[in-house]
Amino acid sequence: MKRMTLILGTLCLGLTLSAQTGIVSTRDANPQNGKILTMEETILSRELSPANLYCRWKSDHELLMHKDGKWQVLDISSNSCSDYAPSETLRPETFTKGQSLWLKTADGREIPIAESESPDITYGQFVSRNEFGINEGIFWSPDSLRIAFYRKDETKVTSFPLLDITTRTGSLKEIRYPMAGMDSENVQLGVYDIAEGSVIYIKPDCFGYDRYLTNITWSPDGRNIFIQILDRSQKHLKLNQYSAVTGEFMQTILTEDNERYVEPLDPLYFMKGRNDIFIYRTANRDGYRNLYLCDCKGGIRRLTTVAADVAYAGNDGRYVYYTSAEVSPVENHLFRIEVKNLKRGLGKATFGKAQRLTSESGWHDIAMSGDCRHFTDSWSNLTTPGVTDLCTADGKTVCNLLTAQDPTMDYAYTEISLGTVRSADGKYDNWYRLVKPKDFDPEKKYPVIVYVYGGPHSQMVQNKYLGLLRRWEMYMAQRGYLVYVQDNRGTQNRGLEFEQAIHGQCGQAEMADQMEGIRMLMELPYVDKDRIGVHGWSYGGFMTISLITNYPEVFKVGVAGGPVIDWKWYEVMYGERYMDHPDINPDGYARTSLINKAKDLKGKLLICQGAVDPVVVWEHSLSFIRECIKNNVQVDYFPYPCAEHNVMGKDRVHLHDKISMYFEDYL
Amino acid sequence: MKRMTLILGTLCLGLTLSAQTGIVSTRDANPQNGKILTMEETILSRELSPANLYCRWKSDHELLMHKDGKWQVLDISSNSCSDYAPSETLRPETFTKGQSLWLKTADGREIPIAESESPDITYGQFVSRNEFGINEGIFWSPDSLRIAFYRKDETKVTSFPLLDITTRTGSLKEIRYPMAGMDSENVQLGVYDIAEGSVIYIKPDCFGYDRYLTNITWSPDGRNIFIQILDRSQKHLKLNQYSAVTGEFMQTILTEDNERYVEPLDPLYFMKGRNDIFIYRTANRDGYRNLYLCDCKGGIRRLTTVAADVAYAGNDGRYVYYTSAEVSPVENHLFRIEVKNLKRGLGKATFGKAQRLTSESGWHDIAMSGDCRHFTDSWSNLTTPGVTDLCTADGKTVCNLLTAQDPTMDYAYTEISLGTVRSADGKYDNWYRLVKPKDFDPEKKYPVIVYVYGGPHSQMVQNKYLGLLRRWEMYMAQRGYLVYVQDNRGTQNRGLEFEQAIHGQCGQAEMADQMEGIRMLMELPYVDKDRIGVHGWSYGGFMTISLITNYPEVFKVGVAGGPVIDWKWYEVMYGERYMDHPDINPDGYARTSLINKAKDLKGKLLICQGAVDPVVVWEHSLSFIRECIKNNVQVDYFPYPCAEHNVMGKDRVHLHDKISMYFEDYL
Repeated sequence: MKRMTLILGTLCLGLTLSAQTGIVSTRDANPQNGKILTMEETILSRELSPANLYCRWKSDHELLMHKDGKWQVLDISSNSCSDYAPSETLRPETFTKGQSLWLKTADGREIPIAESESPDITYGQFVSRNEFGINEGIFWSPDSLRIAFYRKDETKVTSFPLLDITTRTGSLKEIRYPMAGMDSENVQLGVYDIAEGSVIYIKPDCFGYDRYLTNITWSPDGRNIFIQILDRSQKHLKLNQYSAVTGEFMQTILTEDNERYVEPLDPLYFMKGRNDIFIYRTANRDGYRNLYLCDCKGGIRRLTTVAADVAYAGNDGRYVYYTSAEVSPVENHLFRIEVKNLKRGLGKATFGKAQRLTSESGWHDIAMSGDCRHFTDSWSNLTTPGVTDLCTADGKTVCNLLTAQDPTMDYAYTEISLGTVRSADGKYDNWYRLVKPKDFDPEKKYPVIVYVYGGPHSQMVQNKYLGLLRRWEMYMAQRGYLVYVQDNRGTQNRGLEFEQAIHGQCGQAEMADQMEGIRMLMELPYVDKDRIGVHGWSYGGFMTISLITNYPEVFKVGVAGGPVIDWKWYEVMYGERYMDHPDINPDGYARTSLINKAKDLKGKLLICQGAVDPVVVWEHSLSFIRECIKNNVQVDYFPYPCAEHNVMGKDRVHLHDKISMYFEDYL
Repeated sequence: MKRMTLILGTLCLGLTLSAQTGIVSTRDANPQNGKILTMEETILSRELSPANLYCRWKSDHELLMHKDGKWQVLDISSNSCSDYAPSETLRPETFTKGQSLWLKTADGREIPIAESESPDITYGQFVSRNEFGINEGIFWSPDSLRIAFYRKDETKVTSFPLLDITTRTGSLKEIRYPMAGMDSENVQLGVYDIAEGSVIYIKPDCFGYDRYLTNITWSPDGRNIFIQILDRSQKHLKLNQYSAVTGEFMQTILTEDNERYVEPLDPLYFMKGRNDIFIYRTANRDGYRNLYLCDCKGGIRRLTTVAADVAYAGNDGRYVYYTSAEVSPVENHLFRIEVKNLKRGLGKATFGKAQRLTSESGWHDIAMSGDCRHFTDSWSNLTTPGVTDLCTADGKTVCNLLTAQDPTMDYAYTEISLGTVRSADGKYDNWYRLVKPKDFDPEKKYPVIVYVYGGPHSQMVQNKYLGLLRRWEMYMAQRGYLVYVQDNRGTQNRGLEFEQAIHGQCGQAEMADQMEGIRMLMELPYVDKDRIGVHGWSYGGFMTISLITNYPEVFKVGVAGGPVIDWKWYEVMYGERYMDHPDINPDGYARTSLINKAKDLKGKLLICQGAVDPVVVWEHSLSFIRECIKNNVQVDYFPYPCAEHNVMGKDRVHLHDKISMYFEDYL
């Protein structure tokens, strides 16, 4: 049976598509004898995901590989492979105890680096609620002589109470939660000198109490620390250099300003062997997130010049490796550019032509070796479950490390196609994924379920295995639904204008784009226009309720999970970036607030939420149903008492049964 | 059109009934042209309740009457009626400020009586969570020279957090909530001497830290205070006498013991003109709650001798007036007994034959004048909307004060009948109310909604106007449902054995009795046996979930509101009375816990709850759905974010729409 067919360039759905956005389609519409997914399999089965090899370079020639819970190390110099068990490290280690930061020396002694003086102050942990690419709070200097660490002071941040029902009488967990427009945290950066046992603090010298200290970078020689400092409004950034010894401000290397926002996401990447030349990634200069070669005197030259978002992958002092979306927004490929004559200074350097190193259509995840002589290329596409190759730096395959089998062969997976639809402003092609129902008959009419996320930093449709299909979509398709998933303006990998279209009015451009997709669907002869449902979680929950209340004549049923209801209840960092401070954008907050839309709800809407959600706090959804009650509007609700923002495990099986039954009952 | 027909003695439903339990029935089954209730009317309309006259005696000859928000005073000595505005009192007044108790003197000065020394200590407010008939915390001596007051110390009581979402960032209300088996409150009784400005405390001298000080009674001369003291287990009671001047224990007048529980609900009622003879009401001596005449030396003689529950109404030194259920459990009538020769002591007194003073079939609410020369009789029955008469003490009507019109005449109210079904132990007739659907056709099959409460101190079926119909029952009957409401063992007004049948196993006898009613219904030719639903709130929510999980083959749909899920999460006073301490009745707690029943749920169940419910805390219902989730059992849920235990006002309209739609969707 022909199960996996690549149909490149087929024009499905009667759409006229631009040349670069060919639609691909997979599987027969009517697979014979295949198994139907159970909900348990849909949510929990690992066997239905293709085998995956996690690769990380331990040294220039040692590749760590993780598969099925087991680590192996491949030594490419001797071409030998052996089991690997992480051994005791001999260098000192840091650890946090409560809110304090400690050092464990090589001989086993435990020394406090910074002890918390108050429940409101935390040392050595991430800050700024994980925004700006921050996911750790400890930064070793390259020479291992010093440790930079965050100090977070939440004294001014309001508490939000979470109810823990697992204790005998119910108890309370208070979390610090800074809401948009309210007092926020204060962050400082300390530097611990291991030999001296002393701490100094960096003196940022700009932007006041609640500025953000992001993307901490040590100079390779360990003498300087670079911080990308953002003001509270997130409209002004300074790349500042500080002495790691004294904490004194040395200089501002460059600045960024944007009337919407500047969003630093990457540290500096120093050119190999240089303490003064680094690669800097920003979206603020040429409309796309590109790489720039900079020196410490403020010199800056654009390195990658494509009209597509780019990500740094490595450098060996000569070549700079990067991945980019330039082949297609739904594909990720590896490139390199040669940097010549850098010895004579940034101004004299010349850049070679970009050289593409991955060829197979699809999405390539890359791990460069330390010396950039090799890389692993883990890729898949709509019809390829997953391949990992070891390659030389010029892109030649040394050997295949893994070729995954398709784990769904015994299942009645239906046709999945990727395609594009124009954005509402007419400027972009938005990619979608459409899953056809089992036993599809173009003469029949089918109900549609739109699964939506739509928020920044997301991309729901990529040319990866099955097009990033969430297995629940197939579950519903096997039960007779068309399932539609589409990216919209505001999502990632499409450049700054696309991303910032949502600024100050979250949900508006996103809805407009989603509705373009819906209108396209409604023109399809096999779509039952009276039976369109929508489902999403978090930002997607916000989108779901936005759509069903703004387009009550279109959406019959919605299921929203952990939804943002009003951005004034969301956190400072994310909230003010996209929506500004509530005081300066009251109209934007009012227009996007779903509190004001509750009265317009006509369809059936179920809201689900983890009752101890520390991300989108319970206030959101409870306030929405309170408003529905005030307006005598019916709405349904289900809390998961012990779940946080993402409902996981067995709760998730229950949740998806509930979601599915809601559509079965009402759509 | 013949709208209100009294059909006494008709044997409906093919039941054989004992002589005293004649079934009454009202209204045609198919009213012509009548209006259908809207939900707004069902819940909020005052116009659909008959006019009501609230009567209270201001003095021996002045009757205060309240109707439609207006007070009038009827002077029966001059036979004149005038408007009444409560005037400034000239005697001192007590008031509470925060948790402290203050006195405001006649000249306007404010003097602290007892100032709270801690947030855990409260003066002058009710204690014991309103159990044991306690609804106030200040007790003036009859001579107005002293004030007794409760001191409540909740230091040891666990807090339970309630989430208030109406504040900007969500905030917390902590309530003290003593759960069964856990540390409870400590109560003391202080006595403030107004002239001295000093406080003494009563020295209870029995039963330890968490005994209950109930039913505080002053001797008419103001010298003594009588307290009915109950131990924590509620199995032992002492009626103790204390000096109001020194607080010293004087004597134990009598004791009560019961291996299940003793439940004092009434203060002592002194015989007019006597400081040593009083009327005492207890259910612990003769199987029914009867009146006893006692002296302070421990002499006690049974005054009312009927096999029915009795309530004190008044005395003038010669006659003792009381109401009782002796005519029928669903009727309340006034009686009096003459006490002769009391001057020679309790032992020499003789009691006359009880004399019935109210004649009309139905439920009579009585307000005796201070001198017991007059009373008001406010009564109604199934077919009589409400009558209030002024009567002389011998039961003769002086005049009619109000005859209410039937406010539902324009509405399509359907047939309501009252009847009885045998209890599961074969010993009792349990009364029910059955509402037939609109346009009832005995040839058709109808779905049934059982509305249940079933808990102690309740009686859902009484021979009052429309049989105590809740208007929502008529709403559903007008939409094609049979609605059935039945009392069961454990409810009030049927004697001690009936009431205590539930002891240690709440829900078991109640379910057995309800199922007798259900089986009777299922034998009716016009009942659709496959479409039986059940709904109840609080104890009725507990009953609803108990029924649908214990009888999954019978109940297709349930809607439970504010349900108790496990008695270990309910309060000490009520919980331990009916279920004992969890340590001594682990089997009873386990058998009745709905946590253990979640896995057995088969039907559709919706649970609703006020999210800031301080009575049945949120832990109950959230824990139940957590258990459903664990067992992958589907259940539906809806919280009312700002509602307490009883969802009121517009929230209640929304709630009943939701309940109704749930039955419409799934039954």
